[in-house]
Amino acid sequence: MQYTFSDKLAALKPSAIREIFKSLTDPTIISFAAGNPAAESFPVEELSRLSADIFANSAITALQYGMTDGYTPLREAIAKRQYDVFGIGKSRERGDAYTDNTIVVSGGQQGIELACKALCNEGDAVICENPSFIGALNAFRSCGATTVGVEMEEDGIDPDDLERVIKATPNAKMIYLIPTFQNPTGITTSAEKRRRIYEVAKKYSLPILEDNPYGELRFAGEEIPTIKQMDTEGLVIYCSSFSKILSAGMRVGFVVAPEEIATKMVVAKQSEDVHTNLFFQMLCHRFMTECDLDGHIASIRALYRRKCDLMLGELEKNLPSTITFTRPEGGLFIWCTLPEGVDMNAFVKSAIQKKVAVVPGTTFNCDTEAPSRSFRLNYSTPSDEQIVEGVKRLGEAAREFLK
Amino acid sequence: MQYTFSDKLAALKPSAIREIFKSLTDPTIISFAAGNPAAESFPVEELSRLSADIFANSAITALQYGMTDGYTPLREAIAKRQYDVFGIGKSRERGDAYTDNTIVVSGGQQGIELACKALCNEGDAVICENPSFIGALNAFRSCGATTVGVEMEEDGIDPDDLERVIKATPNAKMIYLIPTFQNPTGITTSAEKRRRIYEVAKKYSLPILEDNPYGELRFAGEEIPTIKQMDTEGLVIYCSSFSKILSAGMRVGFVVAPEEIATKMVVAKQSEDVHTNLFFQMLCHRFMTECDLDGHIASIRALYRRKCDLMLGELEKNLPSTITFTRPEGGLFIWCTLPEGVDMNAFVKSAIQKKVAVVPGTTFNCDTEAPSRSFRLNYSTPSDEQIVEGVKRLGEAAREFLK
Repeated sequence: MQYTFSDKLAALKPSAIREIFKSLTDPTIISFAAGNPAAESFPVEELSRLSADIFANSAITALQYGMTDGYTPLREAIAKRQYDVFGIGKSRERGDAYTDNTIVVSGGQQGIELACKALCNEGDAVICENPSFIGALNAFRSCGATTVGVEMEEDGIDPDDLERVIKATPNAKMIYLIPTFQNPTGITTSAEKRRRIYEVAKKYSLPILEDNPYGELRFAGEEIPTIKQMDTEGLVIYCSSFSKILSAGMRVGFVVAPEEIATKMVVAKQSEDVHTNLFFQMLCHRFMTECDLDGHIASIRALYRRKCDLMLGELEKNLPSTITFTRPEGGLFIWCTLPEGVDMNAFVKSAIQKKVAVVPGTTFNCDTEAPSRSFRLNYSTPSDEQIVEGVKRLGEAAREFLK
Repeated sequence: MQYTFSDKLAALKPSAIREIFKSLTDPTIISFAAGNPAAESFPVEELSRLSADIFANSAITALQYGMTDGYTPLREAIAKRQYDVFGIGKSRERGDAYTDNTIVVSGGQQGIELACKALCNEGDAVICENPSFIGALNAFRSCGATTVGVEMEEDGIDPDDLERVIKATPNAKMIYLIPTFQNPTGITTSAEKRRRIYEVAKKYSLPILEDNPYGELRFAGEEIPTIKQMDTEGLVIYCSSFSKILSAGMRVGFVVAPEEIATKMVVAKQSEDVHTNLFFQMLCHRFMTECDLDGHIASIRALYRRKCDLMLGELEKNLPSTITFTRPEGGLFIWCTLPEGVDMNAFVKSAIQKKVAVVPGTTFNCDTEAPSRSFRLNYSTPSDEQIVEGVKRLGEAAREFLK
């Protein structure tokens, strides 16, 4: 049987990272390739206790169909926290120009995909930071949209560059940004650039999808306002999740968006999975309202500060100075760049031979044919011992490869 | 701010059923409008016990990221059961012409949507039974596909009719069928028609999406082979779920499809939600392998047999003979049809005034502008008392309305 697939899926490859994840069955390989939160970041004891209580007292509600836009008490708890912590959530009742709705989605990934589905026809374009999160790029491609890149700089994309790309991309329907601890670069866009980016988007009435999965994970530097917080026009769709602070495997995320957009996303979600796992929505709500979420997040921040510092220190000790790397103030990733003229893919392969896995930078390119001199490292998943040993192996690979 | 939405979502309305579900806050209204499994169908005690054990012994695995195609032990357990119970699952190793893969999805709904995403471009068509499941119709529409109907008869669609529609629809990319205890009609397609439908699909190399969420819920008549079971060519995508036998709110379903199609659906799923809630996948696997699933299903069948018989008996007693209704051999729904010339929507409104809610048949039409003389009744959700009282009210509404 010869199958004919849709154009949007015919060309789409599975994410290289998840393929790497799949192939990392060799236990002698140290992997810096994943993006998994540390096992210590899951509050197992509390979740277990609350889960038993839900089974004892609210089982039928938890196991029955729920509302597509999410479990109302959880939506309210998220809306309250986003407002209290990040100043997010406009409301006509509070005198704002528009009202935001908070909806629950099946992981931040679904929020990204639904935003694209709501705004883009096949053949439309999404403007992205380059490089960017492969899961988002593939979501846009799976909707039949193309991904157009604006190059990342040390403090985020250049707003003038963004404007040039917008002008050159008349079919652009959305701008996708991860302004805080970006995946894959670890870069945080400066407050000044955020303001200017928002002004450019406003000038062209182009919605921004602000993805902030790592926003709670700052372990250095000062808080910077989200773009959503600056949004006076109802231009920003804000997307985040519990994956990095409670559990990745439960697939619970959320979107805060102007109500008209949120309504469309709920209609699309209804056709995708009816609603998000209700039991875990109730579990999130219980954890948020009955446990010490701030204290729990503080402990994750401390853990990642230590792991990031450890990896940065080892990179300094072991890598030749011609290899540069970012110094993130939070999140999960460090971005390393090889000197000019070096074949990055060959380097990544030689690292695998030394039994250390990293993700080649080409994975994250908007243009899948474009080259890259960079690779991504993750410090949240490996143990301290693995970080030390893995960076040592990376250093050996680099010295041999660059000599 | 004036938003421009994608063409596929601009016109899509939220499902009328879920809107009804949302508005059924009046506790004096008896609802036959839902499609919820009975609360008694959730094995709360076993799920609670297994859940505690997963938290105690496998919490980190359950809370961490998992594989997009599903938790391997669950995939294996599903594949085994589908083969043992329904004879589903081809394998080159067993000498078949092709191999099927079993993947886990976030409810049957996601399986339906992913199949369409994999096979249809915007503007393509899906051929459906008319009427059909609104969740599937909206999923196709949300992918930008149109829905083209083939009229349901007492024993399923007419294969000759199907062939006529295929010939008239050159952009058709898929046939969507619920051959067993169809939603909304409760009709089961005969074995003979299934064979002929499959032959027609084969003649035109048109994949069939066979949706079988109620297949385990037969309480009368004899088992009929699934179309998937007849599939010698690798033409059928089979979709089902645990929603009607373990829990609807957990959103765990599965797809058995020729491996090339399954692979594409996994790529699409990766962009939608990365993977399905892993904890509940593990819970399903534990229930399937450690508890008495067959015994549990037998108890649900007995429950629905009783409830269906009760409702049918009350309908006979209370409705004028000019209103006809189907006699399902399983599943959740009865389909009532008013005499010609009656305004069905006005009748449904008058029923609501009598405090009984049903779903207007127009909801399930492939052509959203087409009329309907029918409405859908559900017997799994209401209590016995509600069934008796609700049908009494429906009878009063009918007598007043039809006089």
